[in-house]
Amino acid sequence: MSDGPTIYVSEPLQVYLDDAASKKPAPGGGSVSACVGALGAALVGMVCNLTRGRDKFADVESEIVTLVGASEAARGRLEQLLQDDTVAYNGVIDAYKMPKETEAEQAARSQAVQAGLIVAADVPLEICRVAVEVCRLAKIAAGIGNPQAVTDAGIGAILGEAAVVGAALNVKINLGSIKDAAYVEAAASAIDFLQAEAAALRAETHEITLSRL
Amino acid sequence: MSDGPTIYVSEPLQVYLDDAASKKPAPGGGSVSACVGALGAALVGMVCNLTRGRDKFADVESEIVTLVGASEAARGRLEQLLQDDTVAYNGVIDAYKMPKETEAEQAARSQAVQAGLIVAADVPLEICRVAVEVCRLAKIAAGIGNPQAVTDAGIGAILGEAAVVGAALNVKINLGSIKDAAYVEAAASAIDFLQAEAAALRAETHEITLSRL
Repeated sequence: MSDGPTIYVSEPLQVYLDDAASKKPAPGGGSVSACVGALGAALVGMVCNLTRGRDKFADVESEIVTLVGASEAARGRLEQLLQDDTVAYNGVIDAYKMPKETEAEQAARSQAVQAGLIVAADVPLEICRVAVEVCRLAKIAAGIGNPQAVTDAGIGAILGEAAVVGAALNVKINLGSIKDAAYVEAAASAIDFLQAEAAALRAETHEITLSRL
Repeated sequence: MSDGPTIYVSEPLQVYLDDAASKKPAPGGGSVSACVGALGAALVGMVCNLTRGRDKFADVESEIVTLVGASEAARGRLEQLLQDDTVAYNGVIDAYKMPKETEAEQAARSQAVQAGLIVAADVPLEICRVAVEVCRLAKIAAGIGNPQAVTDAGIGAILGEAAVVGAALNVKINLGSIKDAAYVEAAASAIDFLQAEAAALRAETHEITLSRL
Protein backbone atom coordinates (compact mmCIF):
# COMPACT_ATOMS: atom_id res chain seq x y z
CA MET A 1 0.00 0.00 0.00
CA SER A 2 1.31 3.43 -0.91
CA ASP A 3 1.51 6.25 1.61
CA GLY A 4 -0.09 8.77 -0.76
CA PRO A 5 -3.74 9.66 -0.52
CA THR A 6 -6.31 7.52 -2.36
CA ILE A 7 -7.06 9.12 -5.74
CA TYR A 8 -10.76 8.43 -5.79
CA VAL A 9 -11.59 8.88 -9.48
CA SER A 10 -8.99 6.18 -10.24
CA GLU A 11 -10.54 3.74 -7.77
CA PRO A 12 -13.55 1.55 -8.57
CA LEU A 13 -16.87 3.33 -8.01
CA GLN A 14 -17.57 0.62 -5.40
CA VAL A 15 -14.57 1.77 -3.34
CA TYR A 16 -15.79 5.37 -3.36
CA LEU A 17 -19.27 4.27 -2.24
CA ASP A 18 -17.90 1.91 0.43
CA ASP A 19 -15.49 4.53 1.80
CA ALA A 20 -18.29 7.11 1.88
CA ALA A 21 -20.39 4.69 3.97
CA SER A 22 -17.53 3.86 6.35
CA LYS A 23 -16.44 5.83 9.40
CA LYS A 24 -13.26 6.92 7.60
CA PRO A 25 -13.01 10.71 7.63
CA ALA A 26 -13.17 10.84 3.80
CA PRO A 27 -14.93 10.97 1.48
CA GLY A 28 -17.68 12.84 3.33
CA GLY A 29 -20.62 14.95 2.32
CA GLY A 30 -18.50 17.65 0.67
CA SER A 31 -16.67 15.27 -1.64
CA VAL A 32 -19.89 13.39 -2.37
CA SER A 33 -21.59 16.69 -3.27
CA ALA A 34 -18.75 17.44 -5.71
CA CYS A 35 -19.21 13.96 -7.18
CA VAL A 36 -22.93 14.59 -7.65
CA GLY A 37 -22.13 17.91 -9.35
CA ALA A 38 -19.65 16.13 -11.63
CA LEU A 39 -22.35 13.57 -12.51
CA GLY A 40 -24.68 16.45 -13.38
CA ALA A 41 -22.00 18.05 -15.56
CA ALA A 42 -21.45 14.69 -17.26
CA LEU A 43 -25.14 14.52 -18.17
CA VAL A 44 -24.98 18.00 -19.70
CA GLY A 45 -21.96 16.80 -21.69
CA MET A 46 -23.97 13.77 -22.85
CA VAL A 47 -26.81 15.95 -24.12
CA CYS A 48 -24.25 18.01 -26.09
CA ASN A 49 -22.59 14.88 -27.47
CA LEU A 50 -25.99 13.57 -28.63
CA THR A 51 -26.66 16.92 -30.36
CA ARG A 52 -23.39 18.03 -31.99
CA GLY A 53 -22.51 17.06 -35.54
CA ARG A 54 -26.11 16.29 -36.51
CA ASP A 55 -27.73 18.02 -39.49
CA LYS A 56 -30.98 18.29 -37.56
CA PHE A 57 -29.33 20.48 -34.93
CA ALA A 58 -26.97 22.41 -37.23
CA ASP A 59 -28.45 25.75 -36.20
CA VAL A 60 -27.23 25.30 -32.61
CA GLU A 61 -23.92 23.59 -33.45
CA SER A 62 -21.64 26.44 -32.37
CA GLU A 63 -23.51 26.98 -29.10
CA ILE A 64 -23.36 23.25 -28.41
CA VAL A 65 -19.61 23.15 -29.02
CA THR A 66 -19.16 25.99 -26.52
CA LEU A 67 -21.51 24.25 -24.08
CA VAL A 68 -19.71 20.91 -24.17
CA GLY A 69 -16.41 22.71 -23.50
CA ALA A 70 -17.92 24.51 -20.53
CA SER A 71 -19.59 21.39 -19.12
CA GLU A 72 -16.42 19.34 -19.43
CA ALA A 73 -14.44 22.13 -17.72
CA ALA A 74 -16.96 22.21 -14.86
CA ARG A 75 -16.79 18.43 -14.59
CA GLY A 76 -12.99 18.47 -14.44
CA ARG A 77 -13.10 21.13 -11.74
CA LEU A 78 -15.65 19.16 -9.68
CA GLU A 79 -13.63 15.95 -10.06
CA GLN A 80 -10.65 17.84 -8.60
CA LEU A 81 -12.83 19.25 -5.78
CA LEU A 82 -14.16 15.74 -5.06
CA GLN A 83 -10.53 14.88 -4.29
CA ASP A 84 -9.58 18.18 -2.61
CA ASP A 85 -12.44 17.86 -0.15
CA THR A 86 -11.10 14.51 1.08
CA VAL A 87 -8.04 16.34 2.48
CA ALA A 88 -9.60 19.77 3.13
CA TYR A 89 -10.01 19.11 6.85
CA ASN A 90 -6.48 17.71 7.33
CA GLY A 91 -5.13 21.17 8.17
CA VAL A 92 -7.60 21.45 11.04
CA ILE A 93 -6.76 17.96 12.32
CA ASP A 94 -3.02 18.71 12.16
CA ALA A 95 -3.52 22.06 13.91
CA TYR A 96 -5.39 20.41 16.80
CA LYS A 97 -2.32 18.18 17.34
CA MET A 98 -0.05 21.21 17.88
CA PRO A 99 1.36 21.80 21.39
CA LYS A 100 -0.67 24.04 23.66
CA GLU A 101 1.32 24.42 26.85
CA THR A 102 2.65 27.98 26.63
CA GLU A 103 0.61 31.01 25.72
CA ALA A 104 2.64 31.40 22.54
CA GLU A 105 1.91 27.80 21.60
CA GLN A 106 -1.77 28.27 22.30
CA ALA A 107 -1.86 31.37 20.09
CA ALA A 108 0.00 29.62 17.24
CA ARG A 109 -2.28 26.58 17.53
CA SER A 110 -5.43 28.67 17.54
CA GLN A 111 -4.23 30.61 14.51
CA ALA A 112 -3.45 27.35 12.65
CA VAL A 113 -6.86 25.91 13.55
CA GLN A 114 -8.56 29.05 12.21
CA ALA A 115 -6.50 28.98 8.99
CA GLY A 116 -7.38 25.29 8.58
CA LEU A 117 -11.09 25.93 9.09
CA ILE A 118 -11.05 28.57 6.37
CA VAL A 119 -9.50 26.07 3.92
CA ALA A 120 -12.11 23.50 5.02
CA ALA A 121 -14.90 26.01 4.26
CA ASP A 122 -13.36 27.30 1.03
CA VAL A 123 -13.42 23.91 -0.67
CA PRO A 124 -17.20 23.28 -0.34
CA LEU A 125 -17.81 26.98 -1.14
CA GLU A 126 -15.98 26.46 -4.44
CA ILE A 127 -18.05 23.27 -4.99
CA CYS A 128 -21.18 25.46 -4.63
CA ARG A 129 -19.87 27.96 -7.20
CA VAL A 130 -19.01 25.34 -9.82
CA ALA A 131 -22.20 23.36 -9.21
CA VAL A 132 -24.29 26.51 -9.89
CA GLU A 133 -22.45 26.73 -13.20
CA VAL A 134 -23.63 23.14 -13.90
CA CYS A 135 -27.22 24.35 -13.37
CA ARG A 136 -26.67 27.26 -15.79
CA LEU A 137 -25.27 24.92 -18.45
CA ALA A 138 -28.03 22.35 -17.89
CA LYS A 139 -30.66 25.02 -18.50
CA ILE A 140 -29.07 25.91 -21.86
CA ALA A 141 -28.75 22.22 -22.79
CA ALA A 142 -32.42 21.60 -21.95
CA GLY A 143 -33.43 24.46 -24.25
CA ILE A 144 -31.29 23.78 -27.31
CA GLY A 145 -30.11 20.17 -27.01
CA ASN A 146 -31.48 17.03 -28.66
CA PRO A 147 -34.98 16.67 -27.18
CA GLN A 148 -34.51 12.88 -27.00
CA ALA A 149 -31.99 13.58 -24.23
CA VAL A 150 -33.87 16.45 -22.58
CA THR A 151 -34.48 14.51 -19.35
CA ASP A 152 -30.71 14.16 -18.98
CA ALA A 153 -30.40 17.96 -19.05
CA GLY A 154 -33.23 18.18 -16.51
CA ILE A 155 -31.49 15.67 -14.26
CA GLY A 156 -28.22 17.60 -14.73
CA ALA A 157 -29.83 20.70 -13.18
CA ILE A 158 -31.36 18.66 -10.33
CA LEU A 159 -27.94 17.21 -9.50
CA GLY A 160 -26.26 20.62 -9.82
CA GLU A 161 -28.67 22.07 -7.27
CA ALA A 162 -28.32 19.06 -4.95
CA ALA A 163 -24.53 19.56 -5.06
CA VAL A 164 -24.91 23.26 -4.18
CA VAL A 165 -27.26 22.61 -1.25
CA GLY A 166 -25.19 19.68 0.01
CA ALA A 167 -21.86 21.52 -0.14
CA ALA A 168 -23.50 24.61 1.42
CA LEU A 169 -24.33 22.56 4.53
CA ASN A 170 -20.63 21.73 4.86
CA VAL A 171 -19.68 25.39 4.47
CA LYS A 172 -22.19 26.23 7.20
CA ILE A 173 -20.90 23.67 9.70
CA ASN A 174 -17.38 25.14 9.38
CA LEU A 175 -18.56 28.74 9.65
CA GLY A 176 -19.80 27.97 13.17
CA SER A 177 -16.19 27.66 14.38
CA ILE A 178 -14.58 30.47 12.35
CA LYS A 179 -13.85 33.67 14.31
CA ASP A 180 -13.10 35.96 11.33
CA ALA A 181 -16.47 37.74 11.24
CA ALA A 182 -15.88 39.29 7.82
CA TYR A 183 -15.12 35.88 6.31
CA VAL A 184 -18.15 34.31 7.97
CA GLU A 185 -20.47 37.05 6.76
CA ALA A 186 -19.15 36.94 3.18
CA ALA A 187 -19.30 33.13 2.99
CA ALA A 188 -22.77 32.95 4.52
CA SER A 189 -24.13 35.48 2.08
CA ALA A 190 -22.38 33.72 -0.84
CA ILE A 191 -23.99 30.37 -0.05
CA ASP A 192 -27.43 31.95 0.37
CA PHE A 193 -27.07 33.63 -3.01
CA LEU A 194 -25.72 30.50 -4.74
CA GLN A 195 -28.48 28.29 -3.31
CA ALA A 196 -31.17 30.72 -4.46
CA GLU A 197 -29.64 30.90 -7.94
CA ALA A 198 -29.39 27.10 -8.18
CA ALA A 199 -33.00 26.64 -7.05
CA ALA A 200 -34.23 29.11 -9.66
CA LEU A 201 -32.16 27.53 -12.44
CA ARG A 202 -33.31 24.02 -11.49
CA ALA A 203 -36.97 25.11 -11.53
CA GLU A 204 -36.55 26.86 -14.91
CA THR A 205 -34.74 23.85 -16.36
CA HIS A 206 -37.50 21.55 -15.07
CA GLU A 207 -40.16 23.63 -16.86
CA ILE A 208 -38.15 23.61 -20.10
CA THR A 209 -37.61 19.86 -19.78
CA LEU A 210 -41.32 19.10 -19.28
CA SER A 211 -42.22 21.35 -22.23
CA ARG A 212 -39.90 19.38 -24.53
CA LEU A 213 -40.67 15.80 -23.35
CA MET B 1 -12.35 -6.83 -24.36
CA SER B 2 -15.13 -9.01 -23.07
CA ASP B 3 -18.53 -9.20 -24.71
CA GLY B 4 -20.38 -8.86 -21.43
CA PRO B 5 -21.81 -5.57 -20.24
CA THR B 6 -19.56 -3.17 -18.32
CA ILE B 7 -20.12 -3.67 -14.58
CA TYR B 8 -19.93 -0.04 -13.57
CA VAL B 9 -19.33 -0.32 -9.82
CA SER B 10 -16.22 -2.38 -10.61
CA GLU B 11 -14.86 0.25 -13.01
CA PRO B 12 -12.96 3.35 -11.91
CA LEU B 13 -15.25 6.24 -10.96
CA GLN B 14 -13.59 8.16 -13.83
CA VAL B 15 -14.91 5.61 -16.35
CA TYR B 16 -18.46 5.97 -15.02
CA LEU B 17 -18.23 9.78 -15.27
CA ASP B 18 -16.64 9.67 -18.73
CA ASP B 19 -19.20 7.19 -20.07
CA ALA B 20 -22.04 9.29 -18.62
CA ALA B 21 -20.67 12.31 -20.51
CA SER B 22 -20.26 10.41 -23.77
CA LYS B 23 -22.89 9.74 -26.40
CA LYS B 24 -22.95 6.05 -25.45
CA PRO B 25 -26.50 5.01 -24.59
CA ALA B 26 -25.48 4.15 -21.00
CA PRO B 27 -25.11 5.21 -18.30
CA GLY B 28 -27.82 7.85 -18.69
CA GLY B 29 -29.89 9.91 -16.30
CA GLY B 30 -31.64 6.90 -14.75
CA SER B 31 -28.44 5.10 -13.80
CA VAL B 32 -26.86 8.36 -12.62
CA SER B 33 -29.93 9.02 -10.44
CA ALA B 34 -29.51 5.56 -8.88
CA CYS B 35 -25.83 6.36 -8.28
CA VAL B 36 -26.78 9.61 -6.53
CA GLY B 37 -29.29 7.71 -4.37
CA ALA B 38 -26.56 5.18 -3.51
CA LEU B 39 -24.23 8.06 -2.52
CA GLY B 40 -27.00 9.41 -0.28
CA ALA B 41 -27.49 5.98 1.31
CA ALA B 42 -23.71 5.74 1.84
CA LEU B 43 -23.75 9.04 3.78
CA VAL B 44 -26.55 7.73 6.01
CA GLY B 45 -24.40 4.65 6.59
CA MET B 46 -21.46 6.89 7.49
CA VAL B 47 -23.51 8.77 10.10
CA CYS B 48 -24.50 5.43 11.64
CA ASN B 49 -20.91 4.18 11.60
CA LEU B 50 -19.77 7.36 13.38
CA THR B 51 -22.49 6.82 16.03
CA ARG B 52 -22.60 3.10 16.82
CA GLY B 53 -20.49 1.56 19.54
CA ARG B 54 -19.93 4.85 21.35
CA ASP B 55 -20.87 5.24 25.02
CA LYS B 56 -22.13 8.75 24.34
CA PHE B 57 -24.79 7.40 21.96
CA ALA B 58 -25.59 4.16 23.83
CA ASP B 59 -29.26 5.12 24.19
CA VAL B 60 -29.77 4.98 20.41
CA GLU B 61 -27.46 2.00 19.72
CA SER B 62 -30.18 -0.47 18.77
CA GLU B 63 -31.94 2.02 16.49
CA ILE B 64 -28.61 2.86 14.85
CA VAL B 65 -27.84 -0.81 14.22
CA THR B 66 -31.22 -1.21 12.51
CA LEU B 67 -30.64 2.00 10.56
CA VAL B 68 -27.24 1.01 9.23
CA GLY B 69 -28.69 -2.31 8.05
CA ALA B 70 -31.51 -0.53 6.25
CA SER B 71 -29.22 2.08 4.68
CA GLU B 72 -26.77 -0.55 3.47
CA ALA B 73 -29.67 -2.58 2.02
CA ALA B 74 -30.95 0.51 0.19
CA ARG B 75 -27.45 1.24 -1.09
CA GLY B 76 -27.03 -2.32 -2.37
CA ARG B 77 -30.38 -2.11 -4.14
CA LEU B 78 -29.51 1.25 -5.75
CA GLU B 79 -26.09 -0.06 -6.84
CA GLN B 80 -27.94 -2.89 -8.61
CA LEU B 81 -30.42 -0.44 -10.18
CA LEU B 82 -27.50 1.77 -11.32
CA GLN B 83 -26.44 -1.27 -13.35
CA ASP B 84 -29.95 -2.46 -14.35
CA ASP B 85 -30.79 0.94 -15.80
CA THR B 86 -27.83 0.72 -18.21
CA VAL B 87 -29.58 -2.20 -19.95
CA ALA B 88 -33.22 -1.32 -19.20
CA TYR B 89 -33.81 0.15 -22.65
CA ASN B 90 -32.18 -2.76 -24.52
CA GLY B 91 -35.51 -4.57 -24.83
CA VAL B 92 -37.00 -1.57 -26.64
CA ILE B 93 -33.99 -1.30 -28.96
CA ASP B 94 -34.17 -5.04 -29.76
CA ALA B 95 -37.93 -4.85 -30.35
CA TYR B 96 -37.51 -2.00 -32.86
CA LYS B 97 -35.19 -4.30 -34.87
CA MET B 98 -37.91 -6.96 -35.26
CA PRO B 99 -39.37 -7.53 -38.76
CA LYS B 100 -42.44 -5.49 -39.65
CA GLU B 101 -43.55 -6.67 -43.07
CA THR B 102 -46.65 -8.72 -42.32
CA GLU B 103 -49.50 -7.69 -40.09
CA ALA B 104 -48.62 -10.49 -37.70
CA GLU B 105 -45.01 -9.27 -37.56
CA GLN B 106 -46.16 -5.71 -36.94
CA ALA B 107 -48.39 -6.84 -34.10
CA ALA B 108 -45.63 -8.94 -32.50
CA ARG B 109 -43.15 -6.07 -32.86
CA SER B 110 -45.52 -3.52 -31.38
CA GLN B 111 -46.26 -5.84 -28.47
CA ALA B 112 -42.52 -6.36 -27.85
CA VAL B 113 -41.88 -2.59 -27.99
CA GLN B 114 -44.65 -2.00 -25.45
CA ALA B 115 -43.33 -4.73 -23.15
CA GLY B 116 -39.83 -3.22 -23.46
CA LEU B 117 -41.07 0.27 -22.61
CA ILE B 118 -42.71 -1.02 -19.44
CA VAL B 119 -39.40 -2.57 -18.32
CA ALA B 120 -37.66 0.72 -19.20
CA ALA B 121 -40.13 2.63 -17.00
CA ASP B 122 -40.17 0.06 -14.18
CA VAL B 123 -36.44 0.43 -13.48
CA PRO B 124 -36.46 4.20 -12.78
CA LEU B 125 -39.77 3.78 -10.91
CA GLU B 126 -38.02 1.34 -8.59
CA ILE B 127 -35.13 3.83 -8.26
CA CYS B 128 -37.71 6.40 -7.05
CA ARG B 129 -39.10 3.97 -4.47
CA VAL B 130 -35.72 3.05 -3.00
CA ALA B 131 -34.46 6.66 -3.08
CA VAL B 132 -37.49 7.76 -1.01
CA GLU B 133 -36.44 5.14 1.52
CA VAL B 134 -33.00 6.84 1.60
CA CYS B 135 -34.78 10.11 2.53
CA ARG B 136 -36.70 8.34 5.32
CA LEU B 137 -33.49 6.84 6.73
CA ALA B 138 -31.61 10.14 6.41
CA LYS B 139 -34.28 11.89 8.46
CA ILE B 140 -33.88 9.33 11.26
CA ALA B 141 -30.07 9.60 11.07
CA ALA B 142 -30.24 13.40 11.28
CA GLY B 143 -32.35 13.14 14.41
CA ILE B 144 -30.50 10.48 16.41
CA GLY B 145 -27.03 10.24 14.84
CA ASN B 146 -23.75 11.78 15.98
CA PRO B 147 -24.32 15.54 15.63
CA GLN B 148 -20.75 15.96 14.33
CA ALA B 149 -21.91 14.14 11.17
CA VAL B 150 -25.37 15.71 10.99
CA THR B 151 -24.62 17.52 7.72
CA ASP B 152 -23.90 14.16 6.13
CA ALA B 153 -27.42 13.03 7.08
CA GLY B 154 -28.79 16.29 5.66
CA ILE B 155 -26.87 15.76 2.42
CA GLY B 156 -28.12 12.15 2.34
CA ALA B 157 -31.73 13.40 2.22
CA ILE B 158 -30.89 16.00 -0.45
CA LEU B 159 -29.32 13.30 -2.62
CA GLY B 160 -32.22 10.90 -1.99
CA GLU B 161 -34.69 13.52 -3.19
CA ALA B 162 -32.52 14.43 -6.21
CA ALA B 163 -32.46 10.73 -7.15
CA VAL B 164 -36.27 10.51 -6.88
CA VAL B 165 -36.87 13.61 -9.03
CA GLY B 166 -34.22 12.61 -11.58
CA ALA B 167 -35.47 9.05 -11.98
CA ALA B 168 -39.08 10.31 -12.12
CA LEU B 169 -38.22 12.32 -15.25
CA ASN B 170 -37.04 9.09 -16.88
CA VAL B 171 -40.26 7.31 -15.89
CA LYS B 172 -42.22 10.20 -17.40
CA ILE B 173 -40.40 10.17 -20.75
CA ASN B 174 -41.21 6.46 -21.15
CA LEU B 175 -44.86 6.86 -20.11
CA GLY B 176 -45.38 9.09 -23.16
CA SER B 177 -44.99 6.06 -25.44
CA ILE B 178 -46.81 3.43 -23.35
CA LYS B 179 -50.31 2.54 -24.53
CA ASP B 180 -51.45 0.60 -21.46
CA ALA B 181 -53.55 3.37 -19.88
CA ALA B 182 -53.88 1.60 -16.54
CA TYR B 183 -50.09 1.24 -16.26
CA VAL B 184 -49.54 4.87 -17.25
CA GLU B 185 -52.04 6.14 -14.71
CA ALA B 186 -50.66 4.00 -11.89
CA ALA B 187 -47.04 4.91 -12.65
CA ALA B 188 -47.78 8.64 -13.04
CA SER B 189 -49.59 8.74 -9.74
CA ALA B 190 -46.83 6.72 -8.04
CA ILE B 191 -44.10 9.17 -9.12
CA ASP B 192 -46.19 12.17 -8.04
CA PHE B 193 -46.67 10.61 -4.64
CA LEU B 194 -43.01 9.58 -4.26
CA GLN B 195 -41.74 13.03 -5.28
CA ALA B 196 -44.04 14.74 -2.78
CA GLU B 197 -42.94 12.36 -0.03
CA ALA B 198 -39.24 12.89 -0.87
CA ALA B 199 -39.63 16.69 -0.88
CA ALA B 200 -41.34 16.65 2.52
CA LEU B 201 -38.71 14.33 4.01
CA ARG B 202 -35.85 16.41 2.60
CA ALA B 203 -37.35 19.61 4.05
CA GLU B 204 -37.90 17.97 7.45
CA THR B 205 -34.38 16.54 7.46
CA HIS B 206 -32.96 19.96 6.54
CA GLU B 207 -34.73 21.56 9.52
CA ILE B 208 -33.46 18.84 11.87
CA THR B 209 -29.94 19.23 10.45
CA LEU B 210 -29.88 23.00 10.94
CA SER B 211 -31.21 22.61 14.49
CA ARG B 212 -28.33 20.24 15.41
CA LEU B 213 -25.43 22.06 13.64
